[in-house]
Amino acid sequence: MLPTDELRALAQVTPSKILLLVLDGLGGLPDPRTGRTELETARTPNMDRLAAESICGMQHTVSPGITPGSAPGHLALFGYDPAVCQLGRGIVEALGLDIEVERGDVVARGNFCTVDDTGRITDRRAGRIPSELNHELCDLLNEQVSLEGIDVSFFSGKEHRFVIRLRGEGLSQEVADTDPQHEGMKALAAKPLEPDAERTAGLVDSLVEQAHTLLKDRHPANMVLLRGFSKHPDYPSMQDIYRLSPACIATYPMYRGVARVVGMDILPAGETLEDQLAALRADYDNHDFFFLHYKKTDARGEDGDFEAKVKAIEAFDAFVPSVLEPGFDVVIVTGDHSTPAVLAMHSWHPIPVLLRGRYCRPDRVHEFSESACLPGGLGHIHAMELMPLAMANALKLNKFGA
Amino acid sequence: MLPTDELRALAQVTPSKILLLVLDGLGGLPDPRTGRTELETARTPNMDRLAAESICGMQHTVSPGITPGSAPGHLALFGYDPAVCQLGRGIVEALGLDIEVERGDVVARGNFCTVDDTGRITDRRAGRIPSELNHELCDLLNEQVSLEGIDVSFFSGKEHRFVIRLRGEGLSQEVADTDPQHEGMKALAAKPLEPDAERTAGLVDSLVEQAHTLLKDRHPANMVLLRGFSKHPDYPSMQDIYRLSPACIATYPMYRGVARVVGMDILPAGETLEDQLAALRADYDNHDFFFLHYKKTDARGEDGDFEAKVKAIEAFDAFVPSVLEPGFDVVIVTGDHSTPAVLAMHSWHPIPVLLRGRYCRPDRVHEFSESACLPGGLGHIHAMELMPLAMANALKLNKFGA
Repeated sequence: MLPTDELRALAQVTPSKILLLVLDGLGGLPDPRTGRTELETARTPNMDRLAAESICGMQHTVSPGITPGSAPGHLALFGYDPAVCQLGRGIVEALGLDIEVERGDVVARGNFCTVDDTGRITDRRAGRIPSELNHELCDLLNEQVSLEGIDVSFFSGKEHRFVIRLRGEGLSQEVADTDPQHEGMKALAAKPLEPDAERTAGLVDSLVEQAHTLLKDRHPANMVLLRGFSKHPDYPSMQDIYRLSPACIATYPMYRGVARVVGMDILPAGETLEDQLAALRADYDNHDFFFLHYKKTDARGEDGDFEAKVKAIEAFDAFVPSVLEPGFDVVIVTGDHSTPAVLAMHSWHPIPVLLRGRYCRPDRVHEFSESACLPGGLGHIHAMELMPLAMANALKLNKFGA
Repeated sequence: MLPTDELRALAQVTPSKILLLVLDGLGGLPDPRTGRTELETARTPNMDRLAAESICGMQHTVSPGITPGSAPGHLALFGYDPAVCQLGRGIVEALGLDIEVERGDVVARGNFCTVDDTGRITDRRAGRIPSELNHELCDLLNEQVSLEGIDVSFFSGKEHRFVIRLRGEGLSQEVADTDPQHEGMKALAAKPLEPDAERTAGLVDSLVEQAHTLLKDRHPANMVLLRGFSKHPDYPSMQDIYRLSPACIATYPMYRGVARVVGMDILPAGETLEDQLAALRADYDNHDFFFLHYKKTDARGEDGDFEAKVKAIEAFDAFVPSVLEPGFDVVIVTGDHSTPAVLAMHSWHPIPVLLRGRYCRPDRVHEFSESACLPGGLGHIHAMELMPLAMANALKLNKFGA
């Protein structure tokens, strides 16, 4: 793909509008009883009609055989090379909790865990304590832990998970995990991975020591483990690269977080497709790129519930005419990865994709599904190539070279 | 793709001959009334027969979504990575005017423009003065402008356009444009982009000042703007990489220029397909690689004239049996980009390609068109991969690795 600097030089502002519809975990595998995937089983008259008007194909979010997490999956769809633009575990967790992260902050993912009298870890997840207890412990730590010259905050997640955020001058993310990832070992000292990280590592050690003291009578949650120290990434924004005014309409914080990382405006998305549609209508005039995220396909796939994933796809399909109604010059429908119900997890299988625009060269695909899109006109592409294609089809990309 | 150094190590000289037929701007989009592209509308019995004997597919000159100019389009077809091998605007313009450019020369594209009494630009194109006046002004500048130790030449282009060529020791291309690209501003001083370019920038400033003085009573062409300072690129030649003896048969200077950049011999191509065929026959024994360029498909596409592009394709098709008659071991037919008549400009759409050779694995494609080539055996490839394929099919490429 053309380097970012070259793309930037080609992008131009026009009134045309692009809509990117992402059905999370869209791709599937056949139900052994029918030989049809979730998408092939679902009745999707609206997406089928769209496919007939579109150029279709298959896309890999990373590359063949690679199962992407949600962050690389979406970064690729936004035009970023997911092998280059990697988000640390701490920042992904923070984005998923809607935590405000400023440039310069360092965040990390934490676990409450159980250690014995000698400090050896006996349960890395502290028996998956209830989230309410997690809240209580984070309140305690927020009240009592203090670091010189640094704001430290603990944010509760689910069960044993939390996020720490360090805010202050001169912090470094180059600190190794204190979580040894094995039971029977002691928590590791925070090791600086470069000389500039020595102070931050010392602050982390102090934080862990204070937490250990404060939690010592809180068995099973009597210690903390930290990993994935990371800062807010410094990628060029979609405004900068594509000269777009992009907006995100996502009901889950994780996806809003990744969208925020690439500079999208975060619209109030509510909790349902109806809420998302209302947000799209309300802000239609203010943006020229809309990313609308639908979570249920992935959630039902992760549950291993084939029928429920089929129903989630059908529910989305019923909503398609309304979402297209305001009018878009380019529409893309795809997923960020596959989540086959038979695997009950993210997978590496390529994802069907359709692109509709006035200047797409239509192919013979008349159905939106894995098998139907296979011989489509887009061929097999990388997800990160979709943004240049969307831009081209919206006539927002000038000629490269004389 | 295998790096150039690796390819070079595999290439061997054999008597086999390769013919690359480029129909400029070949790819199209459907006529809304028929649903068929220009190529699908044209009667092309000869290329269809060739497609049936060939392996077919689709190629991207740069990457999905990117609309290439003619220079990157052709460099890719010649096996060069167009994202890496970029030609400056000055050198492309010089090549297009058949100007002799030696290594070490610096060329730039010039505009005659109009400035007011305060030096502000009121018309960047000087009202598109007649080309005859342009010639007269370039003659004046060639006579009167002088730079110490440097040969400076002005070459007329069409209307307001010209090219300057600086020839001498120690010149640098790292000089910023003097053209601010906006009216209402003054021409910029030539800014050196690296310390070594200071002398060249000074020479450019002196040149512009002399021109301004000489032109001051020549309203509307009373000033010059320069951009795209560039040298002849220093790419390895096709002889060097592929051990070929390549020849170019092109009726337009631009394509001869790009062919010259990669080391091709430029055969006298005349003005018509008949002239080109005569050149091919005359030099058949002297080369083992022939690039034959056909311009009309692009020109009619740029005109937005669907029917005329169809006719241009049919005219080329009628000529195919004669051009194949001398005998070639490998024949490739493709374009350097799409120029759909409905867009009336270069576009990003992939281009059909066929490759015929004794050892190609034929597919089920029996027609040379965008939709017919889509499921072809070549799949979707990058144009720069065609040269290794041509070499392989001509049995000119040894095994890679033990």
